[in-house]
Amino acid sequence: MRATLIYGAGDVRVEEVPDPELREPTDAIVRVVRSCVCGSDLWPYASRPATSEGGRIGHEFLGVVEEVGSEVSGLAAGDLVVAPFVWADNTCDFCSEGLQTSCRHGGGWGQDGVDGGQGEAVRVPQASGTLVKLPVGEDSELLPSLLTLSDVFPTGHHCAVTAGVDERTSVTVIGDGAVGLCAVLAAKRLGAERIVLMGRHAARTDLGREFGATDVVPERGEEGIAQVRDLTGGDGTHRVLECVGTKPALEMALGVIREGGAVSRVGVPQYEEGPMGVAEMFFRNITLTGGVAPARAYIEELLPDVLEGEVRPGRVFDRTVGLDEVPIGYREMADREALKVLVEP
Amino acid sequence: MRATLIYGAGDVRVEEVPDPELREPTDAIVRVVRSCVCGSDLWPYASRPATSEGGRIGHEFLGVVEEVGSEVSGLAAGDLVVAPFVWADNTCDFCSEGLQTSCRHGGGWGQDGVDGGQGEAVRVPQASGTLVKLPVGEDSELLPSLLTLSDVFPTGHHCAVTAGVDERTSVTVIGDGAVGLCAVLAAKRLGAERIVLMGRHAARTDLGREFGATDVVPERGEEGIAQVRDLTGGDGTHRVLECVGTKPALEMALGVIREGGAVSRVGVPQYEEGPMGVAEMFFRNITLTGGVAPARAYIEELLPDVLEGEVRPGRVFDRTVGLDEVPIGYREMADREALKVLVEP
Repeated sequence: MRATLIYGAGDVRVEEVPDPELREPTDAIVRVVRSCVCGSDLWPYASRPATSEGGRIGHEFLGVVEEVGSEVSGLAAGDLVVAPFVWADNTCDFCSEGLQTSCRHGGGWGQDGVDGGQGEAVRVPQASGTLVKLPVGEDSELLPSLLTLSDVFPTGHHCAVTAGVDERTSVTVIGDGAVGLCAVLAAKRLGAERIVLMGRHAARTDLGREFGATDVVPERGEEGIAQVRDLTGGDGTHRVLECVGTKPALEMALGVIREGGAVSRVGVPQYEEGPMGVAEMFFRNITLTGGVAPARAYIEELLPDVLEGEVRPGRVFDRTVGLDEVPIGYREMADREALKVLVEP
Repeated sequence: MRATLIYGAGDVRVEEVPDPELREPTDAIVRVVRSCVCGSDLWPYASRPATSEGGRIGHEFLGVVEEVGSEVSGLAAGDLVVAPFVWADNTCDFCSEGLQTSCRHGGGWGQDGVDGGQGEAVRVPQASGTLVKLPVGEDSELLPSLLTLSDVFPTGHHCAVTAGVDERTSVTVIGDGAVGLCAVLAAKRLGAERIVLMGRHAARTDLGREFGATDVVPERGEEGIAQVRDLTGGDGTHRVLECVGTKPALEMALGVIREGGAVSRVGVPQYEEGPMGVAEMFFRNITLTGGVAPARAYIEELLPDVLEGEVRPGRVFDRTVGLDEVPIGYREMADREALKVLVEP
């Protein structure tokens, strides 16, 4: 089959790889119907050292079950399923607590002999725990939104949930990428009435307004902080959803958070240390929360709203490519020409 | 009257100062019956630059109301009252949310013309909001425990509450000072069954065991982390209450926290930046919370248990001095000869 490999910064290729086969009785083979490129794929695309051997990549996909191992239950050939961006048994203590990203028997796509999502098919370990059945056909118009259940929508939701967003809280979302926009959608869905979106790409912030943002602040740094404070009587917002991952984004988050509030991070931090001293956090009782989202924990909760069209997170896809064009998709996302690229293998 | 002033590191003096007088109609004058020395007083005692003019110090006291301003309600001369370690109107939006440390009309003791607690009397701004009446006489044996409502017991409680301690969580408390021991007491009171106390002063950790600690780990650093992990099947505890404030203590906290868990800090951080990258926090979904405790928010909740003798946080006092001996009390606490020093003016 064909699959995407990354050989180093800026070097993504689609190549022939061995067809996936069942290895464990808990495996399933899924033929990929839709996958996509993630903002977090852009970090290795920007900086991965060149290697002669490529690494498999892609961690968001939905598809049709082709074959299941002898210990897989609840799934059968022909089922349309979505996979969260890590695989997990969904039965261990961490999974039971809703932290499938820490599953004792889980792991990541594209690692340790497991296929990546940007390919024609995937061997899915712990298939019963990992995959969630979708009650639509593979010709459904909902597929883009359903695909976001793999990562960006639950990630935005995780950000809002861990921050404690509800109808009584004002919210700032930092970042107008797909996760930031999904965080807006999630905050709105959880009842937030005031949602300030910090982003400077008009096409994206326009979608953010449709998703529920009440204010857009294109300024960054001290100027951006001042703008948000002006909008909130000087206080900042109760919750800040940091969906970028850079240190300047974190500093903006701490600059616009109201005393007693919570900053949640879901952008993969590109820094090791950050401000957590007396002035920034301690005397202001600021909570720092979030982390890699256990998407699996949220899919059943978010799925009905997607099926009913209450939310349309799939609108973050503004470009569709075939599998052979995945390298183009990476380039377009890296160059900010595309917000998020859908892949139809 | 006499009051305590700090002139620099190691230089604490008790001197004559002007008697407090009502300045605002919201003021009260309180004659101090008990005050004490706080672990956080030891930071300026260790490092404050020498000055020719001293600064008033002390932020924990209970006493008898002598006089109230014309706008003070609910208090009268003769009432025994306890003061939280910041004063606050207890009516603004932050106070209503239980964040009296961010009160829009509040402030600290010993600053801006307000007396410190380590003296014979105190002018109390925002007296109606700040002071809480105690239904005992000034000869009550409960005074030491009631005095802890000023700071250390609510601070330990804030640490446990913000961390999310309950009957389903295992807890590590870092630090065997008065706040650490009160955090043990608070965690036990909130239902935690497994409480690991990290501390190396046997007399203190023995009291910690009486307060509810199930395990004591005297080791520090990597060795201490390994010990706590050994005690918890390798995972660490769900909650960590960091009651020291140094960077090594924070690093221990991050070393013993279970994935998905929360580290709460109530020791005043003696660092500006700390680890918050992918490995330490993000991929493990660690929450960092806590901060300066809004003691006022918790006094009514904690008071009945103190009055009924359900908890005896006053046991953290292991030394009593008169007001003139306060400098000796500082030295003994700094030298770790005393755990916490009670002052009887």
